[in-house]
This record gives sequence, C-alpha cells and structure tokens, in this order.
Amino acid sequence: MKIAIIAIGDELLIGQVVDTNSGSIARMIDPAGWSVEYVKVIHDDADAITAAVDEAFAVADVVLTTGGLGPTKDDITKLTLCKYFGGELRHDPTVLDNIKEVFAKRGIQLNPLTEAQAMVPTSCRVIQNRVGTAPIMWFERTDGKVLVSMPGVPFETLQMFRAEVFPQLLDKFHSDEHIGHRCVIVEGLTESKVAIQLDAWEDALPPFIHLAYLPKPGIIRLRIDGHHTDDSLLQSTLDQLHAQLCDIFADHLLADADLTPEESMLQRLRAKGYSVATAESCTGGNIAHRITAIAGCSDCYHGSVVAYENSVKINILGVDPAVIEAHGVVSEEVVAQMAQGIRKAIGSDCAIATSGIAGPGGATPGKPVGTVCIAIATPERTVAATYHFPGTRDRVIDRASTTALTLLAMALK
Amino acid sequence: MKIAIIAIGDELLIGQVVDTNSGSIARMIDPAGWSVEYVKVIHDDADAITAAVDEAFAVADVVLTTGGLGPTKDDITKLTLCKYFGGELRHDPTVLDNIKEVFAKRGIQLNPLTEAQAMVPTSCRVIQNRVGTAPIMWFERTDGKVLVSMPGVPFETLQMFRAEVFPQLLDKFHSDEHIGHRCVIVEGLTESKVAIQLDAWEDALPPFIHLAYLPKPGIIRLRIDGHHTDDSLLQSTLDQLHAQLCDIFADHLLADADLTPEESMLQRLRAKGYSVATAESCTGGNIAHRITAIAGCSDCYHGSVVAYENSVKINILGVDPAVIEAHGVVSEEVVAQMAQGIRKAIGSDCAIATSGIAGPGGATPGKPVGTVCIAIATPERTVAATYHFPGTRDRVIDRASTTALTLLAMALK
Repeated sequence: MKIAIIAIGDELLIGQVVDTNSGSIARMIDPAGWSVEYVKVIHDDADAITAAVDEAFAVADVVLTTGGLGPTKDDITKLTLCKYFGGELRHDPTVLDNIKEVFAKRGIQLNPLTEAQAMVPTSCRVIQNRVGTAPIMWFERTDGKVLVSMPGVPFETLQMFRAEVFPQLLDKFHSDEHIGHRCVIVEGLTESKVAIQLDAWEDALPPFIHLAYLPKPGIIRLRIDGHHTDDSLLQSTLDQLHAQLCDIFADHLLADADLTPEESMLQRLRAKGYSVATAESCTGGNIAHRITAIAGCSDCYHGSVVAYENSVKINILGVDPAVIEAHGVVSEEVVAQMAQGIRKAIGSDCAIATSGIAGPGGATPGKPVGTVCIAIATPERTVAATYHFPGTRDRVIDRASTTALTLLAMALK
Repeated sequence: MKIAIIAIGDELLIGQVVDTNSGSIARMIDPAGWSVEYVKVIHDDADAITAAVDEAFAVADVVLTTGGLGPTKDDITKLTLCKYFGGELRHDPTVLDNIKEVFAKRGIQLNPLTEAQAMVPTSCRVIQNRVGTAPIMWFERTDGKVLVSMPGVPFETLQMFRAEVFPQLLDKFHSDEHIGHRCVIVEGLTESKVAIQLDAWEDALPPFIHLAYLPKPGIIRLRIDGHHTDDSLLQSTLDQLHAQLCDIFADHLLADADLTPEESMLQRLRAKGYSVATAESCTGGNIAHRITAIAGCSDCYHGSVVAYENSVKINILGVDPAVIEAHGVVSEEVVAQMAQGIRKAIGSDCAIATSGIAGPGGATPGKPVGTVCIAIATPERTVAATYHFPGTRDRVIDRASTTALTLLAMALK
C-alpha cells in the first residue's frame, strides 16, 4: 500500500513548528508493510493544496493530509478539498455536539469561528475527532483511492490516526497477509559490528522476513518484520528468529522488546523489587526527567538530587571535599561517592551518578568537553567509568543520560 | 528569494528519524525575507531525487538538499547529482585531508568506504564540511539557480548552513535591501487577546514592516520583521515599534528579546545577583534539565531535588507530614513548603516547586489529571497557585515547567 503525506501549514515552512506528524504516521504504518512514498510540506494555499493532492494521487493509494483545519481564515484545507472533490459544505450537528463537548471539558466559551468547524463537505464521510474540534474527513474517489484530512495538532493527529483512521484504512485495504514483528535492543556495539555478526544469519532469512536496523545514539534497535498468509507459520518463524537474535547478542542485549533504556531499566528494577535514585551534575536532571516521563515509575523511583555545584555534592550527597580536591570533580572517585550518597539520602537500592563537562566551556587539561564520569550502584556493587561523548552540549547531555540508564539496565540483568 | 528543500533518506520515511533540518533552515532564512516554498521528503532513490530536483528548480531560485551523503551504498545523492549536472567524479585531496582530520579527532580508523567520500563531482564547487566527513556540494546552473547538497546529520547541516552556505547564498543573491527584526515575548495572554489589543497598531504599521505571531504553549513570540534600502530608517522604525510593543504589553512582557522562559529567568536572576534551586515532584527534573541545558547557568543555578515520593519531600525538603495529611500532596501549602525547603537545602535565593498529577493515572476527586500546584519563592515572598493543564503526561510536564519558569521570571521583573 503506497501512502503520500501532505503536511499543510505556513508555520511548518517558517520553522516555527516541526512536522513530527508525518514521522509518527510513518512509524505506525511501516510495520504493516505500508510505505510512505514521500512527504510534502506546503503552505496554506489553495493552489498548492490542489496541486499537491493531484501529485499525490498519481503515485499513492492513500493520501493523508495534516493541518490547515483550524477555525481562522488562514486555514483553508477544508474549503479547498470541498472544491476538489465537488459538492458543498453542510452543517453537521454531531460535529457541533463534539465541539461543544470538547470546549465544555476545557472550560472555554464557544465562539462563532469554532462553531463554523461543524460545516463539512458533502463529499466526505466524517470521522469524529474525539480529542479536538476539527472533524476528520474521509474522501473516496471512484477508483477506490482515499484521502483522509486530519488536524495538524500532533496530539490530535496521532490519537485519532491510531484509534480510528489507520484501523479503517486497514479494513478497507484488507489483505489476506498477516503481519508480525519482533524487536531486540542491542547496546555497546557499532552498526557495522552488528551487521558483520549477522551476515550469515541475514542471508539465511526466509523471503517473507526482513530485518531492519534502527540505530539511535548509543543503542541499535533490530526489528524483524514478516508477512505471510499463514499466521501460525509467521508467528513461529518470528519467535524462532527472535530467540536466535537474543542468543547471538546475549552479552549486549539491552531488551528483548522495543523498549527505551529507561523502560528496560524500570522493568528490571521492578523484577528485583529495587528502587533507583539519581545524583546528577552534568546531566542536570535529564535522567530523572527521562525516568519520570514514564507513567507508573513511582514504584521504583523516589527522587533525585541535581548536584550542579560542589557545595550540593558535599552537603547533600556527602561527597568528601578532599576527594574532589585530589581527583577533580569530574572523576570516577567523585561519581562513586555521589552514587553512594544519593542511595543514603533517598534510601534507594540502586543509584546513577554523573559528573562531566557538557561544554562548550569548562574543559581542563586532560578533560576535554564531552568527558563524563558515570557511576552506577546496585546493592551488590558500585562501578564508575569515564566516557568521551562528541558533539554539542545537548548531545553530550543526551548521550551521557542514555549511557547511564543503559549501564544500570545491563547491571541488573 | 524562493527556496525549495529536499530531504533525502529512507530513515525519514519510516519515521525512524524526524526531519528537523528543514525547519531549522527555514527558521534561519525566514528573517532574511527568504521563503521556503515547500519541503519534500523523499527516499534514497535516483529517480525520486532527479524528479524532485526538476520539480524544485521549476519554482525555486535555490534548492537545498539534505541527506543521502553517507559512505554506504544506499546513499546515492552524490552520484545522482553528478549525473544530473553532468561531468564525472574526481578525487579531491583537500576533502580527504578534512576527512582524515575529523577521524583523527574522533580517534577512529579511516576505512575505504569513508575515503571514497573524497570523490566529488567535477560539476560542483566543494564547501569543506568542518564538522563531518561528507563534503558540501554547490552546483550552479547557467541561469544562475543554485543547488546546495548538504549532509543529513542535523548537527553538521546546521553548523555548516549557518557558517558557510547561508552567507555564501546571501552574497550571491545580494540585494540592496537591509533586513532587521525585533522580538518580544508575551505571557499570560491568548493569541486572540493579543491580536485584539494590537488591532489598530498593526493597521498603522508602515508597508515595509510585518508582524509575525509565533505562539508556543504558554507564551507568544511577537516578531517585527522589516526590510528597507535605508538601513538607518529601518533600524529606528524597528526600535520605535519595539518600544511600543514593550509598552503595550508591559504587564505581560516575559522578555524584550527572543528568549525562552528559562533564559529570561536566568537573565533576571543574574541582574539581581540571585541564585535559584528547584524542588520538583510532577515535573520530575525537567525544570532543572531546561535550566542546565543553557551553557553558563552555573552562576545562578546550584542544584535541585526531585522529590517524587513523599518521604523525599519530608526528609530532604522538610515538608511537614501534617500539612501533606491535611491538604494532600498536590496542594499550594505543600509546594510553598517545598520551595522554602529547597532554598534552605541548597542555600539559594529563589526557588521553584511543583507538585501535580501528570497522568494518565493518579487523579483524585477534585484533582483531575493535569492539576499542578506551583510555588515560586524570592527573598521577598513566596507565592503558590494551582493550574490545570490539558493533554497527555508529556504535555502536562512541559506546560507546568514553562509556567513555573515564566512565573519566576515575571516575579523578578
């Protein structure tokens, strides 16, 4: 199934907002074997929209548009599509009820502009937008090709695409083929090392199976995709190949499913009944933020100290000033003490501690920008090591956080 | 000047990587009055690239491509462009020297694949990539239209576009017009309220001035853009209009320049010689992370406590268990005590404290998901208030963080 995505909005083309919708949609449909042929980001302009829809139908079975459905006069997607597909606008009372409900929930007064969102083209079928006010419009051509117009607010687009639009598309473009996936996350190996290790294994894959390398900074996701009319053959093949991958990368397996380092760490903490706390200098609270971004983390996570200044390391974490004096604050000795200190201060079983030079300033002789010391502590042991991460301040903070979370997850295996 | 951007890479169309380059480029060129006509995201496919370049030259003066310049065989942008513009590949010793230097810095061994990146089309002028190995290629048509091919790694693209590509483009497409901008950040008003307040003011703007509304969750950026052949007239007009905006929104002015809430807060802390610390429950370290993401924050920021569990609030921040018992942990009374507690624990002048229900679970009668209590403390006073933020967990955390940082920045005016 070939998909073309048209993202509509002036704000996308002045860089005020980044189009994350297209990537999110692509991520959802890719495992179904559906492919995004291209994404085009265009202005709120009737001619541009019309030309883009023509171009899209020429190559795609399904055209998805996002954006341009707001209540203000610069949002012209609905009118343009109404003209494109013929017919006129009609008032849809169900849409109005939905808008009233959304506004009531938000405690906002309905105004005439928003009320006009209840006008929809006669040529489309409406899918109620349960999380916003702009109705989703499903247009169908006589040749069976479909255009679905969705709002641009990522939160609305993704919820509605996942819950309604994608299932309805799958239903319409039904295939006898079953699809399936398995995922493993490998840490501590470069992409080329993984590829070399999998060379023979990949060559022996059956034709209905494909392996995707999805590298992220510090980790590599390997996803086995398969499609077959025989679902039980498909599932057993996937299970077998998944078990082989887990076996091949046993020493470097961060997770046997599609988990982030923090999700994997929380899962393993939970399995052992452990809790974790973080003591962060150069990562500045980012590790705590990544842990607490996960709903339900509170059973294994109780708190953190961001110890940016030495006085905080000394007074709250109990780091020995003499150790700072002797080894410098960016040292394995100091992060080891920070890890012990935060375990005591929070009363946690495990700990993560970081101290480093995120840059651009702060480099000292022998400790260039990107130098980060990380300690992880479990009830059994505390280990500390020094890393050198390339790039700008935000990249150093991100890589250090990923590495620290991965280290603890691996130590808990 | 009309720009078309082509982002090349299979990884962009399966949603593995989001194309942030196009937005960053748009943000940089927009203030110069240059406009991005559209962005097209396409596969690593020779036909797709060729067709996209044809399409782009039909409407744009300058075509920018990103991606597809890696050393592996799926990266075919260079070969395709070489064929498109005619000529052949030649070995460029300067590019090889640059690659060797980059690799030496990273401490990686040079391999034959990477060495092949020193082959460049005879039809292009090379701009050395100082932060990566893929050379940047400047192609020029006989009619003066230009295509610049840049790597896809955001870090490389942006640094090189800002430092080399954009200045060279500005130089080539030189205009007698000067450009200028002023920015103010307004908080606590909706976009429509701002628009109503500015109605007459906008109508009276001279024709060479344009006002852009750039709303972000919780704040609105107002940017005055101008262009004129008379630079001193332009600058004095911009100054005057900027002063008027500052005056109109005096009570809601978060910043008189393009600053984030955390940058504005740090600026005002610095002006008063104050420091800040955070005590975070529902924001889980995100406020600390946003402060420490700014280089040089250490003169006003010393540390934080993420007090996710009650025991941390009580033991480290000194919150009175009886107050938690009486008012609930999500209460103005508790955040006020957290703010006082963190000031004492860290020894800071000012403080931010948060406690709320980020969701999806955790709602209690009268305190639905999205309820967040925020306290800010200065040496003069401590104030606490309750907010209700809509949306998912990540949005609640983000909005609560922005609001808290904005509140302290406004209190320091």
